[in-house]
Amino acid sequence: MKVAVLGSGDVGKRLAEGFASRGHEVILGTRTPGNPELKKWAATVKGKVFVGTFADAARQGELVVLAVRGDAALPAVEAAGKANLSGKVLIDVTNPLDFSKGMPPSLFVGTTESLGERIQKAAPSAKVVKAFNTVGNVQFVDPHVKGQPRLEMLIAGNDAAAKQTVTGILKSFGWAGSIDVGGIDGARWLEATVPLWVRVGGALNTYSHVWVVGRD
Amino acid sequence: MKVAVLGSGDVGKRLAEGFASRGHEVILGTRTPGNPELKKWAATVKGKVFVGTFADAARQGELVVLAVRGDAALPAVEAAGKANLSGKVLIDVTNPLDFSKGMPPSLFVGTTESLGERIQKAAPSAKVVKAFNTVGNVQFVDPHVKGQPRLEMLIAGNDAAAKQTVTGILKSFGWAGSIDVGGIDGARWLEATVPLWVRVGGALNTYSHVWVVGRD
Repeated sequence: MKVAVLGSGDVGKRLAEGFASRGHEVILGTRTPGNPELKKWAATVKGKVFVGTFADAARQGELVVLAVRGDAALPAVEAAGKANLSGKVLIDVTNPLDFSKGMPPSLFVGTTESLGERIQKAAPSAKVVKAFNTVGNVQFVDPHVKGQPRLEMLIAGNDAAAKQTVTGILKSFGWAGSIDVGGIDGARWLEATVPLWVRVGGALNTYSHVWVVGRD
Repeated sequence: MKVAVLGSGDVGKRLAEGFASRGHEVILGTRTPGNPELKKWAATVKGKVFVGTFADAARQGELVVLAVRGDAALPAVEAAGKANLSGKVLIDVTNPLDFSKGMPPSLFVGTTESLGERIQKAAPSAKVVKAFNTVGNVQFVDPHVKGQPRLEMLIAGNDAAAKQTVTGILKSFGWAGSIDVGGIDGARWLEATVPLWVRVGGALNTYSHVWVVGRD
């Protein structure tokens, strides 16, 4: 499958590497497609990765991954172009983190809204699925947690088939599956786990920790 | 130790039973100390449990547990009396759940405030520690989760010694320990896990699930 990954930070690169490692053709969308560092990186990735603009990537991608910083999410959707996202699964990895008061961050959305919902509204014909936002990027692909052989990703979105597609991708990445917390309004609570994740990371001095849903 | 548990719902009763089972003397505070059902329940608990008003309980307790519904939290603090809480560790188990739009719930505080902070403000000389609010009451004491021998409770509060006291209690209850996510403002994010916990419970058809922090 052709996959557009919008965002050329660590989160976007890690996902691009993951999709490429599973045999997909990746078009990494960025505001700076001429960046020589990015071209160098793309050349080192195992598998097919091309670099282009947000619109290039979104046009070519059969599935689109939004992996930019929270404050860049809506501009990236705008730059990608609504028409290029129409009818496609859009995996939303973004977090509305507010660092204006330093660390640890807060959220720039409240609990009566979410960035996931804003993105769904900005691209109404896309099938937005919130995923990957609750874990650190080192765990996106081939996740590894001591004593936890079955890791599940928390996801939310309005389209059941799109969530199935994302769950299939998660399984191919080494996750046991997903836990579906409902419509895209569930993004409110997935996003709200992230300031807590940062605090827990500070307490434990790690960035590779993962929420596990334990049950008896 | 004499422990006041304010609240006579399932959450309060479960904690009262837990403290009594560990040899503490419990005074259960309630708006309805004459309730015959409560007296009957107290008689069945192994260990010492007495029933009284919020003020009775808070006055006698060397440690106080606030275990009422979120919308009853501040009235309960008021009824308990600031002076009766002064200098004491106050374990805040409450959640600001808003069911006004049905299930699943939202929060009646935003993400720039929390019920934990409101309680700390209402009882400024108490040492408020948020704890137990992120897990279901069936897991408070002797927690049991398949394949998870070391369960840690997420806690927050301004007073380091109070958090140590609470961690000691948690260990006596069968928890491996606590993860300290910072000052009482951390309650914002501990409380925000609860609407997600409800959604996950709906997806998995359980109320005994627990957040586990997996790490490599």
